[in-house]
Amino acid sequence: MTTNRQWRVARHVQPGETVGIDNFELVEAEVPELKDNEFLVRTLMLGTSPAQRGYIDPTRPDIVAIGDIMRGRGIAVVEASRHPDFAVGDWVNASTGWQEWSIQGADRGTVQSMDVLSVQKVDNTIRPSSLQLGTLGSAAFAAMYGLQEIGEIAPGKTVVVSAAAGGVGSMACQIAKATGCRVVGIAGGPDKGRWIVDVVGCDAAIDYKNENVDEALRSTCPDGIDVYFDNVGGPILDAALGHLAMHARVAICGYISTQYASERVPGPANYTCLLGRRARMEGFVVWDHIDRFPDYYGQLRAWYDAGDITSDVEEVEHGIEALPDSLNSLFTGRNRGIRLVQVTPDPD
Amino acid sequence: MTTNRQWRVARHVQPGETVGIDNFELVEAEVPELKDNEFLVRTLMLGTSPAQRGYIDPTRPDIVAIGDIMRGRGIAVVEASRHPDFAVGDWVNASTGWQEWSIQGADRGTVQSMDVLSVQKVDNTIRPSSLQLGTLGSAAFAAMYGLQEIGEIAPGKTVVVSAAAGGVGSMACQIAKATGCRVVGIAGGPDKGRWIVDVVGCDAAIDYKNENVDEALRSTCPDGIDVYFDNVGGPILDAALGHLAMHARVAICGYISTQYASERVPGPANYTCLLGRRARMEGFVVWDHIDRFPDYYGQLRAWYDAGDITSDVEEVEHGIEALPDSLNSLFTGRNRGIRLVQVTPDPD
Repeated sequence: MTTNRQWRVARHVQPGETVGIDNFELVEAEVPELKDNEFLVRTLMLGTSPAQRGYIDPTRPDIVAIGDIMRGRGIAVVEASRHPDFAVGDWVNASTGWQEWSIQGADRGTVQSMDVLSVQKVDNTIRPSSLQLGTLGSAAFAAMYGLQEIGEIAPGKTVVVSAAAGGVGSMACQIAKATGCRVVGIAGGPDKGRWIVDVVGCDAAIDYKNENVDEALRSTCPDGIDVYFDNVGGPILDAALGHLAMHARVAICGYISTQYASERVPGPANYTCLLGRRARMEGFVVWDHIDRFPDYYGQLRAWYDAGDITSDVEEVEHGIEALPDSLNSLFTGRNRGIRLVQVTPDPD
Repeated sequence: MTTNRQWRVARHVQPGETVGIDNFELVEAEVPELKDNEFLVRTLMLGTSPAQRGYIDPTRPDIVAIGDIMRGRGIAVVEASRHPDFAVGDWVNASTGWQEWSIQGADRGTVQSMDVLSVQKVDNTIRPSSLQLGTLGSAAFAAMYGLQEIGEIAPGKTVVVSAAAGGVGSMACQIAKATGCRVVGIAGGPDKGRWIVDVVGCDAAIDYKNENVDEALRSTCPDGIDVYFDNVGGPILDAALGHLAMHARVAICGYISTQYASERVPGPANYTCLLGRRARMEGFVVWDHIDRFPDYYGQLRAWYDAGDITSDVEEVEHGIEALPDSLNSLFTGRNRGIRLVQVTPDPD
């Protein structure tokens, strides 16, 4: 039997604390034997996202217990099967957890899943596997929902995206560009600013660390913001609200700048602009809209095949060891693009 | 020629200042002679609303100049006519200004109107004239738009209304009740609380001056707020956002608690609940939706005729002298219901 390396939860995260390497412990275990209606998969690719902090935050519901395998969905390949619907060589999107091998298809006991998706077979001709979690994955779906359903984007609209160098943000910028919008991305530091213009394709970048965001929005969006896709909250949201165009839409995807603050932070005083601008601000959670995923996948696939969006926003690290640091990077400003970890090389 | 008493603007209002009697001067003038295509009307009824402060606020566009007649729309009766479409005895809704007599139907020179409605004939069989500006007027239309178009109210929903003892607020409560909603009104002081239950028909009242609004919302809305109709902003909005039900709607009609503050006030930190609750917050200005007024009038008239809404929310004062104090009352918490001034008694 092969060794199964697993990241188990060593310590829950405390309020105001940044999740990191010391919340997890890498252990070796054996893979249990297959029973009927089960199949064994080898994890190819895992993604990290800010929501995963919540899996080990004791102020949240349904967390992973100390000593259990860290929860996470990934792309995996079937290596052995006693399940009639899954054959060796099939690829699946499944709640594998942070481990190299897992048993799928029946009650597995170790990985508590609050994910609403169960095991799904995915197209194993699309290579690399990173695409399934990256350019064609849930970060992109979140961007699609916020832009299309809340933002109602259309060619010629001015779209502003915060955390534009992040996973969801970089996909939101690309999707808005592919739709024919003018896109201004907000990110921290000149390196990210260059990246969101050169790689992501933004028309302009605002460096919130070195520019006055209010003034920069005035100069980059002289006719106002039609759609603001927000991942950060805080003072950047407040500034953006001050520059809304008439009938603007604000899609609230996250508020990472204040979400884990230990003290209460002020709200956006410029919410009052919603009145004068007859504007709408709406929050959403992409997992409510699983029924839309096939449609979004199809749209993204068509743009990708046509070269209208790029997978260069995927930042893939190699080896299961990289996972805790990858998660940590989402909260420290080090992150760029969609963070993925290739646990096992893709099979030929 | 009869004397025409007029309120002229004596002094513009300063930032942070409450509008009041010393902003206006009551003068006597003569009524000019009628020309072709003009008609003379006698003002029956005028309303005051918070927006009128903006007409003499030099930080706003298109204000009324010092010495000019204060702008305002009212119900008036035609007393003489050289206009083919208006006959003596007709009633009109018109931008009369704060005066007893006015010439309508051509360029009048004195009353600068930024109102989007021009002169409209109204049903002169509906008595008293207060109904046209009150229970069946623009305050009610604002409540209709916010509740129906943004709130999408339906029987059984829990609706919370701030400034529930105000003009728009008391109509919003009545409309939500007539639709079959459960209605909680927020108002200042025990007298207003009793009034919004006994007269307006709220199921419960929250006295923000003497209760903890957060706790009171928890106890009165144990399943959360489906629709929050906001007139005030500030800490009450923030508290309400913390109690939204899933997929809640927040209609922003005004923010009078902070609108005239001389210092910048904090925004609603609980806007973040829009995400977790997948909720929508949207601002509106009723005058954008004049095309809906006939429909709203019809719905309100049907409820009124059936006894489902009451005109007891109209608070009518008598005599043109009352106007500045009536406007002042909207900003001092003295106001209750829809404030109207009967300038001239209704004709038989």
